[in-house]
Amino acid sequence: MQIFHTIAQLQAALNQHRHQKVALVPTMGNLHEGHLQLVKIAKQHADVVVVSIFVNPTQFAAGEDFDSYPRTLQADCQQLSTVNADMVFAPSVDEMYPIYPPNVQVLSGEITQILCGKSRPMHFDGVGLVVSKLFNIVRPDVAVFGKKDYQQLAIIHKLNNELNFGIKIIGGEIVRADDGLALSSRNQYLSASERAIAPVLSQSLQALAERIIDADLAAYPSLIDETKARLTQAGFVVDYVEIYNHHLQQPTHTDEQLVILAAAWLGKARLLDNLEVLRQ
Amino acid sequence: MQIFHTIAQLQAALNQHRHQKVALVPTMGNLHEGHLQLVKIAKQHADVVVVSIFVNPTQFAAGEDFDSYPRTLQADCQQLSTVNADMVFAPSVDEMYPIYPPNVQVLSGEITQILCGKSRPMHFDGVGLVVSKLFNIVRPDVAVFGKKDYQQLAIIHKLNNELNFGIKIIGGEIVRADDGLALSSRNQYLSASERAIAPVLSQSLQALAERIIDADLAAYPSLIDETKARLTQAGFVVDYVEIYNHHLQQPTHTDEQLVILAAAWLGKARLLDNLEVLRQ
Repeated sequence: MQIFHTIAQLQAALNQHRHQKVALVPTMGNLHEGHLQLVKIAKQHADVVVVSIFVNPTQFAAGEDFDSYPRTLQADCQQLSTVNADMVFAPSVDEMYPIYPPNVQVLSGEITQILCGKSRPMHFDGVGLVVSKLFNIVRPDVAVFGKKDYQQLAIIHKLNNELNFGIKIIGGEIVRADDGLALSSRNQYLSASERAIAPVLSQSLQALAERIIDADLAAYPSLIDETKARLTQAGFVVDYVEIYNHHLQQPTHTDEQLVILAAAWLGKARLLDNLEVLRQ
Repeated sequence: MQIFHTIAQLQAALNQHRHQKVALVPTMGNLHEGHLQLVKIAKQHADVVVVSIFVNPTQFAAGEDFDSYPRTLQADCQQLSTVNADMVFAPSVDEMYPIYPPNVQVLSGEITQILCGKSRPMHFDGVGLVVSKLFNIVRPDVAVFGKKDYQQLAIIHKLNNELNFGIKIIGGEIVRADDGLALSSRNQYLSASERAIAPVLSQSLQALAERIIDADLAAYPSLIDETKARLTQAGFVVDYVEIYNHHLQQPTHTDEQLVILAAAWLGKARLLDNLEVLRQ
C-alpha cells in the first residue's frame, strides 16, 4: 500500500494505472469498520482503490470540531492495509488549498439547505468543493460513500450528474454496533453513560419505520413528534427527525421508497442516523 | 472531422484516443479567424483537437442576446475542417442541461464581480459552470481560450487551479481586422456606419497604453477619463475602461505587467477589447 501526501506524487502513481479501473473512497480518517466496508465495496468494482484521508476545513463552521476532530493516520493506514487498499492520499490543508479561503465555490442548490444544511449552513458547500477537487485529482471510475451521510450521498449524486464527472457513485450500507448505534468517528465524543443511551436513536428510527409503513402521510407529523419526544426524554437534543422520499423531497402518496433521517446531539456528539423504508 | 451532438457519442470517440493528447477549444460557434487561430494553437499542443460549439444559456441574463446570438453550425464546421479540427461537439441545451435551471453552481469569487461582472452579474457563473462541465466531459490535457475575453481567461485559470482540473490553459492572442477592431461574433450587430467607428475602441486603448507606460499610478484615473471621453465623443456608450495588473488586481508601483480592459456599447453591439502593457 502506497501513501502519498502530495497531489503530484499521487497522480504520478495513478498514471501507471490509467488502463485499469480506479476507485476512490473519500474519508476524513479515524477509520472504523464502516469505512473498511466502503473499501471492500470499492475493491469489488475497481483494480486500484485510493482512500483519501483529509479533514476538510471548508466543511466545518467556526466553533465546530475541526481542531478536535481525531487524526489517526498511522492507525488508519494499518487498518487500510488489512483490507488491501492500494493507495492512501493524505494531503495537508496547504496542499489541498494553496489559496485559503478558496475563491471558487461548488454549490449544489436547495438540497444543501435542508436537514443538516439547516444547522450547518455552509457544510455541504465545503463537501461539494472538496469532493470536486478529489474527483479531479484522482479521476476515479467509481467512488464509494457511506449511507450514514445520506444527504451528502444525495448531493454527490447531483454533483456527479450535473457537472458530468461521469463517475459511478456507490452508497455503502450503514455499519452498526451490536446495539444498533451507527458507527461514526464522533461516537468517541460520547461518555460511557451517553454511549449507553446512544442506541435509542436507531431504535427510535426503527420504531418510527414500523409505524409509517402502512400509515397515511397525514399521520407523519405526529409520528415524528412522538419520535422526537422519545429522543428528548432519553437525553438527546434533537436537531431534526424527517421523513422524505429517497430523492430527499417531501414524500407523496405515490412514493414507495422513503427514508427517515435524524440528527441529534448527545453531550458533545452530534449523531446522525437514517433508515430506508419501503412503503406498502 | 467528426461531429457529435451527444456526450455519450463524443466520449465513445474520445475513448479511442486516451493514449494521445487531447485539446479542447470551447466556443459559442459563429466562428471567425480568431477562433481558427485557437484551433491552430491547440493543434500544436495535442494530437486530437475537440472544438465545442454551444451557446450556453446560463451565461446570458434575461434580455441579453441568447435568442439572437448567431447559430451557424454548418459554416462553422466547414471552417473547422480547413484547420484540421478533429472533433466538433455541438450539443443541445437539453443534452448539456437535462435539469434546467441547474441546481449546481460553480462560482469563482470576487474576480467575477469586477469589469464585465458588474454589468453582467451572473455571466461568469454561467461560464464557470459550462466550462467545468466541458472539462469533465472532454477531460482535455490542454484547453485554449481567446484573450479577447481576458477576464474569462483569468477566471478559467483560477477554476483550473482551485478545482484541480490539471489542464494546461493557453490564451490565444486577439485577432484583429486590418483597422484594429478585435474580431467578435457580435461585430455583425454593427451597422455600416457603426462598423466605421468601431476601430476607435482599439485605437483609444493603444493611445492610453502609450501614455501609461511611464506615467505615475496617480495619473491613471484622469487618463482613463480622457479615454472614456474620447469613446463617448465617437459614439460609444462606455461600460468600463480599467487598468489592472495581469492578475486583474489593482496595479501597484511594482507591477510591470498591466492590462487595459474596456467594454463599450456601439448601437446594439457590446464590444470588448483589451491590451497588455509592459510598464517600465
